Amino acid sequence: MTERTVREIAEQLGASCVGEEDLVIRGVAGVHDARREQITFIANKRYAAAAAETQAGCILAPLDWDRPCSAALIRVPNPDQAFAIVAGWFAPPEITPPPGVHPSAIIAPDAEVDPSASIGPQCVIEPGARIGPRSILQAQNYIGHESRIGADCRLYPQVTLRERSVLGDRVIIHNGAVIGSDGFGYTVNDQGVRAKIPQIGRVIIGDDVEIGANTTIDRARFGATRIGNGVKIDNLVQIAHNVVIGDHAVIVALVGIAGSTTIGPTAILAGQSGVAGHLTVGAGAIVGGRSGVTKNVSPKTYVSGFPAQAHDQETRVQALTRRLPEIKERLDDFARRIQQLESRKKERPG
Amino acid sequence: MTERTVREIAEQLGASCVGEEDLVIRGVAGVHDARREQITFIANKRYAAAAAETQAGCILAPLDWDRPCSAALIRVPNPDQAFAIVAGWFAPPEITPPPGVHPSAIIAPDAEVDPSASIGPQCVIEPGARIGPRSILQAQNYIGHESRIGADCRLYPQVTLRERSVLGDRVIIHNGAVIGSDGFGYTVNDQGVRAKIPQIGRVIIGDDVEIGANTTIDRARFGATRIGNGVKIDNLVQIAHNVVIGDHAVIVALVGIAGSTTIGPTAILAGQSGVAGHLTVGAGAIVGGRSGVTKNVSPKTYVSGFPAQAHDQETRVQALTRRLPEIKERLDDFARRIQQLESRKKERPG
Amino acid sequence: MTERTVREIAEQLGASCVGEEDLVIRGVAGVHDARREQITFIANKRYAAAAAETQAGCILAPLDWDRPCSAALIRVPNPDQAFAIVAGWFAPPEITPPPGVHPSAIIAPDAEVDPSASIGPQCVIEPGARIGPRSILQAQNYIGHESRIGADCRLYPQVTLRERSVLGDRVIIHNGAVIGSDGFGYTVNDQGVRAKIPQIGRVIIGDDVEIGANTTIDRARFGATRIGNGVKIDNLVQIAHNVVIGDHAVIVALVGIAGSTTIGPTAILAGQSGVAGHLTVGAGAIVGGRSGVTKNVSPKTYVSGFPAQAHDQETRVQALTRRLPEIKERLDDFARRIQQLESRKKERPG
Repeated sequence: MTERTVREIAEQLGASCVGEEDLVIRGVAGVHDARREQITFIANKRYAAAAAETQAGCILAPLDWDRPCSAALIRVPNPDQAFAIVAGWFAPPEITPPPGVHPSAIIAPDAEVDPSASIGPQCVIEPGARIGPRSILQAQNYIGHESRIGADCRLYPQVTLRERSVLGDRVIIHNGAVIGSDGFGYTVNDQGVRAKIPQIGRVIIGDDVEIGANTTIDRARFGATRIGNGVKIDNLVQIAHNVVIGDHAVIVALVGIAGSTTIGPTAILAGQSGVAGHLTVGAGAIVGGRSGVTKNVSPKTYVSGFPAQAHDQETRVQALTRRLPEIKERLDDFARRIQQLESRKKERPG
Repeated sequence: MTERTVREIAEQLGASCVGEEDLVIRGVAGVHDARREQITFIANKRYAAAAAETQAGCILAPLDWDRPCSAALIRVPNPDQAFAIVAGWFAPPEITPPPGVHPSAIIAPDAEVDPSASIGPQCVIEPGARIGPRSILQAQNYIGHESRIGADCRLYPQVTLRERSVLGDRVIIHNGAVIGSDGFGYTVNDQGVRAKIPQIGRVIIGDDVEIGANTTIDRARFGATRIGNGVKIDNLVQIAHNVVIGDHAVIVALVGIAGSTTIGPTAILAGQSGVAGHLTVGAGAIVGGRSGVTKNVSPKTYVSGFPAQAHDQETRVQALTRRLPEIKERLDDFARRIQQLESRKKERPG
Repeated sequence: MTERTVREIAEQLGASCVGEEDLVIRGVAGVHDARREQITFIANKRYAAAAAETQAGCILAPLDWDRPCSAALIRVPNPDQAFAIVAGWFAPPEITPPPGVHPSAIIAPDAEVDPSASIGPQCVIEPGARIGPRSILQAQNYIGHESRIGADCRLYPQVTLRERSVLGDRVIIHNGAVIGSDGFGYTVNDQGVRAKIPQIGRVIIGDDVEIGANTTIDRARFGATRIGNGVKIDNLVQIAHNVVIGDHAVIVALVGIAGSTTIGPTAILAGQSGVAGHLTVGAGAIVGGRSGVTKNVSPKTYVSGFPAQAHDQETRVQALTRRLPEIKERLDDFARRIQQLESRKKERPG
């Protein structure tokens, strides 16, 4: 078990500390749960009350932190980031399977697996697939024909990649994600009977991408569904055929992106939102949670609601919607008063 | 095939029956589909017409049932519950694999599997994992390092548990569910490039929990994502890192719960609803279908809409929203009449 | 690699062409991405600008296409359909595993697998299951006890079918889909503690059905959850117990259908919509994207919004909602003017 004193932690972060410098820290915890031998963090002054009451032995706090607290204090420019670093020190050792192929894995003779890669139990790797250096495929992955996986990737158990999918380097894919399933495309006749349109494209994923559990990314009708570098995708997200996601975009859980839509670099789609097909969400745009985008979104704008509109406007409309009972009352009041005005007129002869 | 007479069924339910007591019943069905050798049930008088027309040989009905029907009648305090019991008698035998480990399963030498547990074909159980008495793991499950599964659990095929997950007793997990995937947490720099925050916590699940197919529950950033005793979670639900779900809460399909939110005991989140991060939904609260919760919800309240508000208020606002065309007409009418009043004034000199 | 001249393509489509008839085409692409040795298509005149600028060597265009373009032109009645055909010619060869059972598959002795079927690596087929002629089960499928799969089906990797599920002919199921998981049904006592209702029904799926990746279809409480012929279901859809879906209906991604609801033939549920339990959506009805259906929908109607109403009405209400700030201003204006009228009255003595 890792042990470090408050002083050692401060030194390693290049920060100074006040309080009980020799206290030995053995783990990390949230401000409410922490015990004396643990370190916690405070992101901002909203947590002043919690900081005053925490049982933690040490707190990572912002540089301007001046509130009372019983714990030792290490002030840093970004407590959230510093805590991520410290948490890493105390984390249980990461599970890193050794290089090599588990005897139960089934690897096609002409698949190319780098000798430094690790292929877990019961993986199936189809003909023509290539697995790059140091990539780790945990148990029960399926890698389709002619798929390519770059270097230093990690696939958690039960990921499936359909044929000809491409992954860059340092890609992380969580359990149950499906890459390269057929797009949802049909022609339809007069009786409403549908015939499948062959989905002959593929999925191309850049470097440093993370894809959440049970997320699905469809292959292109033709060409490629493209996920840019640094894109982060949460769990249970649906990305349809021919979608293009720009570098460093963020897609939160339960989002659906319909076919042929483009999401610009660094755009953020918040949880349970959706984007209709054949649209463009501009670079750096934000789509609010549970919003539904039905037309193009300009770069660097913040839209919300359904149909999504500028967030300011949506907020204003939402507030007024909630005041509809009051609006109704005013209307009834006006009706009465107008009628009164009208009747008084009639009463008073010219 | 199970056979029981109407009289035998009534006796076993501790109820009396009227009608053809010797009729042999061989199965259960819904009131519209049932045939003469089947038993059905009627929950309340809304189904009086269906009861009059059903082909079923026997009906389970409420104690105060007085409507005409041709079938034999067994009156019980709770027909729904009684039917669940009766349906169990006529159900095809449950599939209960024998204790022991299938030869194709891959079990780490230091994993502990109780001899009364059943480990199906092609399961993978990693080092340090423990499987309790009488628990059944069907085919192709993945149990991560140092995970613990209690007694009398059932994991349907292709469930994955990441490392250090903990399951209580009598937990049921359906196909494709993912327990313990990484939380969705990053630090972000000025260019919008994200760096992964290590997710070093785990998932702890209580007793008598049921988790639906393809549902995902993320491990905690640190500490634990906690699912209380008796919690029931439907299919395709996303539960983010550090969420805490109180005992006997119910989470319906396609719900998303964002990070660090607490759901109180016996609360109910209806289908496709969502709860933002760092919130509390109080004990016994109900969140309506397709609602989005953006602030704390008091215990035992019923909220709906997006942003969710008291259900009464939401219903009232919804009704008024639908009357906006009428409101618009009233405004136009008022405009005309006010203008008329104003112009008449001008016409009439003092 | 397939090669065809523009003339050959036109001849095979039974169409005529204008322009460089001898140009050799080696692939297909979208109008924006296509290169000179590729063919693309233009569905309608909205793409006139793109057609003028495309680098494609050949364009499939509507019969009445009269816009300038540098590429060779093949006019056809339905460019979209024609392109689907042409794309098939240039597609990489489909992956068709040979008939027979992979040695790593685990097949119960009394399961019946047609000799022309293909059972991939690490499939598990339980006792009493039957697999029809020419059906292809790719790697790591799980087929439960007594399930039946018809002829010419294709199951992509890691599909799971629970016991007694039935699939017709030519059914396609994508990776990670779960067929036959338990319905979400409990009885509840006064303390909010739930007891599981046995889910003893099953799932019956017709012919020519396609089911998307990670979609879940629950078995019936009793009887059957039924998916009609020709139904197309996208990714991450939830279909609850005892739902009945009529022939040729279409269910788009992230839709949820609650228990015992009936969807009529050829109805369409657009993405992220939901339908509450025990309802009927009529034949040919359309439910708009992100809509929530809370009462029956008449055949051939188009509903949207939440609670869903006639689309025309929803559109009108939505437009007026967005004009609430203006409505508010009008109210304030009226208030001022009515007050003025009232005070003037008082000023003027009778």
